[in-house]
Amino acid sequence: MKGILVKEGEKRNTLELTDMPNPDIGAGDLLVRVDHAAVNRTDILNREGKSGYAANPILGVEAAGIVVDPNGHESFSDGDRVMGLVNGGGYAEYVPMPADRAMKIPSALSFADAAAIPEVFLTAYQTLYWIGKLQKHETVLIHAGASGVGTAAIQMANQLSEAQVIVTAGSARKLTFCQEIGADVVVNYKEQAFDEEVLKATANEGVDLILDFIGADYWDKNFKSIKKGGRWVLIGMLGGAELKNFNLMTLMSKYIQLTGTLLTPRSDVYKAELSNEFTQAVMPYMEEGKIRPIVDTVFPIEKANEAHEHMENNRNIGKILLNMNRQ
Amino acid sequence: MKGILVKEGEKRNTLELTDMPNPDIGAGDLLVRVDHAAVNRTDILNREGKSGYAANPILGVEAAGIVVDPNGHESFSDGDRVMGLVNGGGYAEYVPMPADRAMKIPSALSFADAAAIPEVFLTAYQTLYWIGKLQKHETVLIHAGASGVGTAAIQMANQLSEAQVIVTAGSARKLTFCQEIGADVVVNYKEQAFDEEVLKATANEGVDLILDFIGADYWDKNFKSIKKGGRWVLIGMLGGAELKNFNLMTLMSKYIQLTGTLLTPRSDVYKAELSNEFTQAVMPYMEEGKIRPIVDTVFPIEKANEAHEHMENNRNIGKILLNMNRQ
Repeated sequence: MKGILVKEGEKRNTLELTDMPNPDIGAGDLLVRVDHAAVNRTDILNREGKSGYAANPILGVEAAGIVVDPNGHESFSDGDRVMGLVNGGGYAEYVPMPADRAMKIPSALSFADAAAIPEVFLTAYQTLYWIGKLQKHETVLIHAGASGVGTAAIQMANQLSEAQVIVTAGSARKLTFCQEIGADVVVNYKEQAFDEEVLKATANEGVDLILDFIGADYWDKNFKSIKKGGRWVLIGMLGGAELKNFNLMTLMSKYIQLTGTLLTPRSDVYKAELSNEFTQAVMPYMEEGKIRPIVDTVFPIEKANEAHEHMENNRNIGKILLNMNRQ
Repeated sequence: MKGILVKEGEKRNTLELTDMPNPDIGAGDLLVRVDHAAVNRTDILNREGKSGYAANPILGVEAAGIVVDPNGHESFSDGDRVMGLVNGGGYAEYVPMPADRAMKIPSALSFADAAAIPEVFLTAYQTLYWIGKLQKHETVLIHAGASGVGTAAIQMANQLSEAQVIVTAGSARKLTFCQEIGADVVVNYKEQAFDEEVLKATANEGVDLILDFIGADYWDKNFKSIKKGGRWVLIGMLGGAELKNFNLMTLMSKYIQLTGTLLTPRSDVYKAELSNEFTQAVMPYMEEGKIRPIVDTVFPIEKANEAHEHMENNRNIGKILLNMNRQ
């Protein structure tokens, strides 16, 4: 089969479509013929060699395709359409997918739609519900609202929790899109102080929950934006990780719960439980079209380097996919 | 009546026993004739003028005594023995105590025992269970093990949760005491690196929960001592509040939940709910003598200044009380 490996470069590592044997599958895996895979920031980190947790040399942590070997797992048959998180190897024609976290694709969704679901929706679900404990009618601040996780989180907070959803993004186009999918208040962080807008929108109380992809750059404004007793979940460090002179009393005085999380390095059991709960809680909304995967651009697998550059340029609304050119 | 007011001094503010009118009681209060009150660090901060939340000029956030006016609250009668958190005013002959958080004193306990309960046991209960979510048979690291909150937390973690309790303190005398009341592993922080001892005691996994009274001084060692996915509760800053560098990625890479909390500034409703749940969960253990309030020293109310100095010198094991000299 063909799959993407990283080729070291002087200035920049690149992605190279390479001939290789089909993958071995373990006892817990289905063998899936990939139709579409999706690009994630973790893939960029892996390409750059900054992250160590992908034991698999083939990039890609999620895919959608057809089961070609159920490998004895009775819940699946040859030809089933599935999507799910994989342990690397998504950017390839075939990938082993652990059966306990493979999700069947509703008939209303294409493979491209499906490939846009697992990583961002599971991350958003984990962050909003398992860690953030979002309750009905609470208020949530979602940064990077037009990102893959952002668009997933906006829709779930709106549909599942009827939350007041406050979103930041960096262009009018992105903000308009966020409103279309359920954001109640949108803030252009390049033109407005988001903490002031949050306080205006919450009668000076602040929000119950912050989904923070930014880290250091937004620290003080996030602190001003959170309610006493609020929950603050760190899921990305796009604005730096290093805080200088951090006063712990700030966390005590507002009773803040600050939790860091990552999805990719979590255990197999964790991913299976998350996939199962997500399927039950959210898939009915997808079948009805009330929540939908957001696809920005689809690149053919040969143009994987362009797909990475597109994400690095930060212009996407929703997911960037790789098409394996199946008929 | 007599009550303690703060008198400003050049070098040090002092406590002065002063004649004053009996307190007014609000609709929600019982009037309690105080038998014993207890000293807390928050009182020291208030004496020093460093903390602003006590609207009441009389110091003291907890007391035990006799109801002399139930003020229409039908769950209480004249002469009932009660203990509880008060909104300031504990260092006095009479204090208004909100009826919804007054707890009846089991007959096995003296007023001195009872005065040693509310603040430290409620703080420890809140921290271990409401915030720390301690589960049966988990591992917990409790710093300042011989302090009031420490001794309460050790006993509850041991009796209610059969947890593995690891404790730090600064003298052999304190450590021996901690073992007597239920600590499984004790570490003298002056002689041993506690993170190394924690890792030894947990097969290199680290603890599920840290009760952190120390803050900045222990930061790196606490980080090394916590398990992936562990909970870390900040309840004191005895070792400073200021971190020079805080890398948020540390929280993400270990999925840590870091929560700050304080009890005294919480709402009346919060304190009432906490008192009620604590009464149900822990009082049966106190009636059987399996968990007990720990009293270090009792000072007569006239020696309140010495009581504060005793706490500032950090030599106490358990609570420091003020005796109102009732017969």
